[in-house]
Amino acid sequence: MRDVAIIGIGMTDFGELWTESLRDLFVKAALEAMDDAGVDHIDSMYVGSMSSGLFTGQEHIGSLLAAYLGQAPIPATRVETACASGGAALRCGYLEVASGASDIVLCGGVEKMTDVSGGRCTYALATASDQDYEAFHGVTFPGLYAMIAVAHMAKYGTKREDLAHVAVKNHDNGFLNPHAQYRMKITVEDVLNSVKVADPLNILDCSPVTDGAAAAIVCPADMARKIARKAPVKILASAQATDTIALHEREDITWNNATAAAAEKAYKQAGLSPQDICFAEVHDCFTIAEICVLEALGVVEKGKGGEASRSGMTARDGKFPVNPSGGLKSKGHPVGATGIAQIHEIVTQLRGEAGERQLSDARRGLAQNMGGSGGSAVVHIMEVLS
Amino acid sequence: MRDVAIIGIGMTDFGELWTESLRDLFVKAALEAMDDAGVDHIDSMYVGSMSSGLFTGQEHIGSLLAAYLGQAPIPATRVETACASGGAALRCGYLEVASGASDIVLCGGVEKMTDVSGGRCTYALATASDQDYEAFHGVTFPGLYAMIAVAHMAKYGTKREDLAHVAVKNHDNGFLNPHAQYRMKITVEDVLNSVKVADPLNILDCSPVTDGAAAAIVCPADMARKIARKAPVKILASAQATDTIALHEREDITWNNATAAAAEKAYKQAGLSPQDICFAEVHDCFTIAEICVLEALGVVEKGKGGEASRSGMTARDGKFPVNPSGGLKSKGHPVGATGIAQIHEIVTQLRGEAGERQLSDARRGLAQNMGGSGGSAVVHIMEVLS
Repeated sequence: MRDVAIIGIGMTDFGELWTESLRDLFVKAALEAMDDAGVDHIDSMYVGSMSSGLFTGQEHIGSLLAAYLGQAPIPATRVETACASGGAALRCGYLEVASGASDIVLCGGVEKMTDVSGGRCTYALATASDQDYEAFHGVTFPGLYAMIAVAHMAKYGTKREDLAHVAVKNHDNGFLNPHAQYRMKITVEDVLNSVKVADPLNILDCSPVTDGAAAAIVCPADMARKIARKAPVKILASAQATDTIALHEREDITWNNATAAAAEKAYKQAGLSPQDICFAEVHDCFTIAEICVLEALGVVEKGKGGEASRSGMTARDGKFPVNPSGGLKSKGHPVGATGIAQIHEIVTQLRGEAGERQLSDARRGLAQNMGGSGGSAVVHIMEVLS
Repeated sequence: MRDVAIIGIGMTDFGELWTESLRDLFVKAALEAMDDAGVDHIDSMYVGSMSSGLFTGQEHIGSLLAAYLGQAPIPATRVETACASGGAALRCGYLEVASGASDIVLCGGVEKMTDVSGGRCTYALATASDQDYEAFHGVTFPGLYAMIAVAHMAKYGTKREDLAHVAVKNHDNGFLNPHAQYRMKITVEDVLNSVKVADPLNILDCSPVTDGAAAAIVCPADMARKIARKAPVKILASAQATDTIALHEREDITWNNATAAAAEKAYKQAGLSPQDICFAEVHDCFTIAEICVLEALGVVEKGKGGEASRSGMTARDGKFPVNPSGGLKSKGHPVGATGIAQIHEIVTQLRGEAGERQLSDARRGLAQNMGGSGGSAVVHIMEVLS
């Protein structure tokens, strides 16, 4: 396998972007990534999008977007693993370059979620759960994650305040991110007093509905050394895993087995352990998710995820900064784009270009992207190419 | 890049399968492919599906199906390029094996189309066209292909009867395929007298709405020589290309540029020309599609596709048999599964296992899978591994 590096990144602002269509958003992010990489063509393209069909009535977006980007007739494929679609798109591009079949591949993600009403948006998102056994009966994602939160509190003594600390920390970070949807600081009291969504989760425990796109350009590491305009970022590991998408089929709903399996493979591929990672972007679709993910990644022990934000460990100046971008909670969560937006932040930090939110030690970063209530997970580990 | 071979295939019957769900269908085809290959595990999986969200309210099917197949936590990704999703799934699996990242990869396709009413089914299919410029205004695929047919007739003198001959020939073949949805012979008169759908296309010019699934197992060619239970089939070329998905953006709507570009790449990769191919499975979603595709593949000259069926050239005993399986027209067209069902037929013919419809010379086959009105195309060339 050839070594693969990221040489360009781009993303739109995240938010309720009512004047921009799905194709507008994607092309904007993709052109920014191509400009950042200094390339005027790409050999192939993957686009992560969870449900362009239900959100916008448009499938077949690989070809649509390749043509709008002026790159047809290159191969272009949409990939979908619910909210982990962006991470899966990067893995597909990574494999295509690693194989030798293509040199310059664009891995993007896009979701245009605000073209449908709230009820239809909730319906579309619920199609990432098991339609026959969960969604059909009216369960939606806040409910599923609420069950995980209740189980985690019962099993490990995690406190309601621990959940709130995750949101507070991520808003502290997103406040410094010009692309973020919600650039406002919040307090633990704000979270505890915000509107109830599904007990114990309040509205400030939940990531928002967002429009946005992000893109990254990958190429062989050898080529990156020659053509990159900025420090190329090597992909040390790219791993993906699955679990049942229905909660009732899992032995322990507090344990994110897809993330654990993907992380184990990624650490093995990179020859690293969790202690070798400096910071991470993880999938905080709900505050409880970040807590479970840190445990599955081996960053903290089982059951200790609740302490991580409360103790300051995962703050920007903590021992292991998590979600310096603001995470899904503050930056926003255009579901198919999220996995690539995480990569955008990792590369920005590794390059030392994160401005006010720049971490003091950002030598090696990990991105964890997740689908549904943990049915899919993708883990990438990256550092500046030496 | 490592050489890649197909060692197992499976498919369900195609039809209106009201008692079987999407997951039932996929698992049936996948288990048959694993059994055919003689493997009890897979390392990774790709599933082609065009619109499981709009047809069944279920996205995130990569993980769902990997778990139902008993293979979680392997990586599993859904890929979508409209009706070319199956072909794109095979290309993803091919690249993953070629890269060295995985050894045994399942490439499947599934679509469960009859859970929605006719109107919603037509809406879902139309999302493969340009929603903003085509579908929104009420154009659906029969209308788009009717425009292509009218243009082809005007430009090249193609006759209405030429279209009918494609359907007659494909029904002749499907009559001998136990998996086919419509196992009945038809005549040119039947086609000409059948119900009008979009002038000049009648109902017997159109492929049907179908439920079904298909699967293929790929692995490195070296491994295939050791473990395969039946003659392994080498993938000589795997190529994909795009065009605008909207017809009005193309210079010439009778010319299928995505197919031409994918075919050119595939011939180059295999070191072959059209004359070196013995037979093909092509994307006859409408009769006019097969005519345009044969031209884009270089099997006949531009404008001469109409003669191909009429003259008998593409019949089972003709110079270049096309769609010995019955094609989409007679076998059925569960959109995401079609690309893999084509591979199923190529492998079956190459193995000499096609029974009554076995071709006399099936040494090397080509599969052409297409999305929308030609916005995507995937071409694979295969022969028995020597």
